[in-house]
Amino acid sequence: MSLLTVGTVAFDAIETPFGKTDKIIGGSATYISLSASFFYKKLQIVSVVGDDFPQETIQQFHQKGINTDGLQIIKGEKSFFWSGKYHTDMNSRDTLITDLNVLANFNPVLPETYHQPDYLMLGNIDPVLQLRVLDQLKKRPKLIMIDTMNFWMNTAMETLRKVLTQIDILTINDEEARQLSGEYSLYKAARKIVSEMGPRLLIIKKGEHGALLFNNNHQMFYAPGLPLPEVFDPTGAGDTFAGGFIGHIARSGDLHFDNFKRAVVVGSAMASFCVEKFGPERLLSLTEPEINERIQQFVELAHFDMHNSFF
Amino acid sequence: MSLLTVGTVAFDAIETPFGKTDKIIGGSATYISLSASFFYKKLQIVSVVGDDFPQETIQQFHQKGINTDGLQIIKGEKSFFWSGKYHTDMNSRDTLITDLNVLANFNPVLPETYHQPDYLMLGNIDPVLQLRVLDQLKKRPKLIMIDTMNFWMNTAMETLRKVLTQIDILTINDEEARQLSGEYSLYKAARKIVSEMGPRLLIIKKGEHGALLFNNNHQMFYAPGLPLPEVFDPTGAGDTFAGGFIGHIARSGDLHFDNFKRAVVVGSAMASFCVEKFGPERLLSLTEPEINERIQQFVELAHFDMHNSFF
Repeated sequence: MSLLTVGTVAFDAIETPFGKTDKIIGGSATYISLSASFFYKKLQIVSVVGDDFPQETIQQFHQKGINTDGLQIIKGEKSFFWSGKYHTDMNSRDTLITDLNVLANFNPVLPETYHQPDYLMLGNIDPVLQLRVLDQLKKRPKLIMIDTMNFWMNTAMETLRKVLTQIDILTINDEEARQLSGEYSLYKAARKIVSEMGPRLLIIKKGEHGALLFNNNHQMFYAPGLPLPEVFDPTGAGDTFAGGFIGHIARSGDLHFDNFKRAVVVGSAMASFCVEKFGPERLLSLTEPEINERIQQFVELAHFDMHNSFF
Repeated sequence: MSLLTVGTVAFDAIETPFGKTDKIIGGSATYISLSASFFYKKLQIVSVVGDDFPQETIQQFHQKGINTDGLQIIKGEKSFFWSGKYHTDMNSRDTLITDLNVLANFNPVLPETYHQPDYLMLGNIDPVLQLRVLDQLKKRPKLIMIDTMNFWMNTAMETLRKVLTQIDILTINDEEARQLSGEYSLYKAARKIVSEMGPRLLIIKKGEHGALLFNNNHQMFYAPGLPLPEVFDPTGAGDTFAGGFIGHIARSGDLHFDNFKRAVVVGSAMASFCVEKFGPERLLSLTEPEINERIQQFVELAHFDMHNSFF
């Protein structure tokens, strides 16, 4: 039993209206795995870093139940580095620096013990690499989920389409759903993606507006976004959502639509913590009682009873 | 027992990516009253039109249970006319024509029989006029709800603030909540409005992203927006929401927070119909079974059960 995550492990430098950081730990696989680790302990990670990456962080991964046999450490090279600055609305940002470094030649190789994961999460990387991971599997996982973005739709759509035919769940934002499907209506976009393009489930992440879940059986679910007193740093929120989602699924082993709905709420709760501090800082201090309390807030936020309100 | 609505009754000419209309019936009081009429039949309306306004429409109002003793018909003058064009995303629009006509000198006068409404809905008009309506009341209604917009915040903030101290519920959109409170975070904006500015309830309308409800007792509710195959014309959706909301409240007579949550869902369901056709067309053909079915769709869209998902 295992949950394998493939994505980036990296350094970020972040500036928001609330402050700025030096180089801190980031990367999609980092956020996904840290978030999932609250729910599931058989975690595996495939990624690449340089020898500038701190040994303490790798130790932290181990303490969280994240096996790092698949984390390549390239001697004499530097880790992937991204720097960005968020605008006042926190919904848009400028990329200041993208130093690919070790990521430029990343070839995801699954160690022998990684060939049969039960759950597979492919973070937002080049679809060519996502395809290479899929090719190394010895057994079809119970669930394959991927994240991607508009950049890959613009530069590698054909490969991305190939990836989509082999997976179960796609997570993207609303603009990406429109671009991928060619449909402006999110309803139509989602119907097209889940009935024609491969994934049987689609999650549309809408940031502060919540998340939509669609399946290929005409079912829909809308999890609200929890209004927060402060959004400090949105970096990693989408990955933290994905980690909470698939961590909950792996923990429960339940692949029914009702449980996918719960997983969306769990993912939303985890993402709502992520944005409260810079980088993955909040995830590192998080406790189970805090998660329970936050999930309860989502329950109260969304619950209504239409008793006596029909004609 | 009555629900009094004050607002505009007017002509609109609308252009959307799906088509355009000639002059059709519009106005905030029209949408609010038509929407409320499905839930409550003791409706009163205070507004003004010219003698170009069709007698058939006034007959339709009567058939829907809307008393028009407060609808001033000004001989020899024209009704308020607005013309606008929506952009592809349907979230923004250009105003092409605003002919105030009779609205320029509108003085809302409540007929004797309108002086003690149980429920009062003040549509989006000049706060000076909203204040004049409040001044004519002989008895405090059980509930006073108002709509307003950024235009009045820019031009008549002091008067608007006076109105706010006398009402129960304010409905605005997210940008307006930010402008009114001076807070970017909707959470903080809402807290400030419901604890310091007068209304004890705030509804933040987020269009396709749903609606948020806050009270002055730290309770929050987020009703999702139903993803629709097509949004044909958003004109009147906010007013239709308000009409469904206060219509449901008037019908039930229940002023508890749980019932305000239901009212938000009813309002959202009504608004989701409104956008399916041009102007109030869909509201005029709507049936009770259709409303029941739509509300059930909202229940299914938002429902989840976190059973077994806590630590």
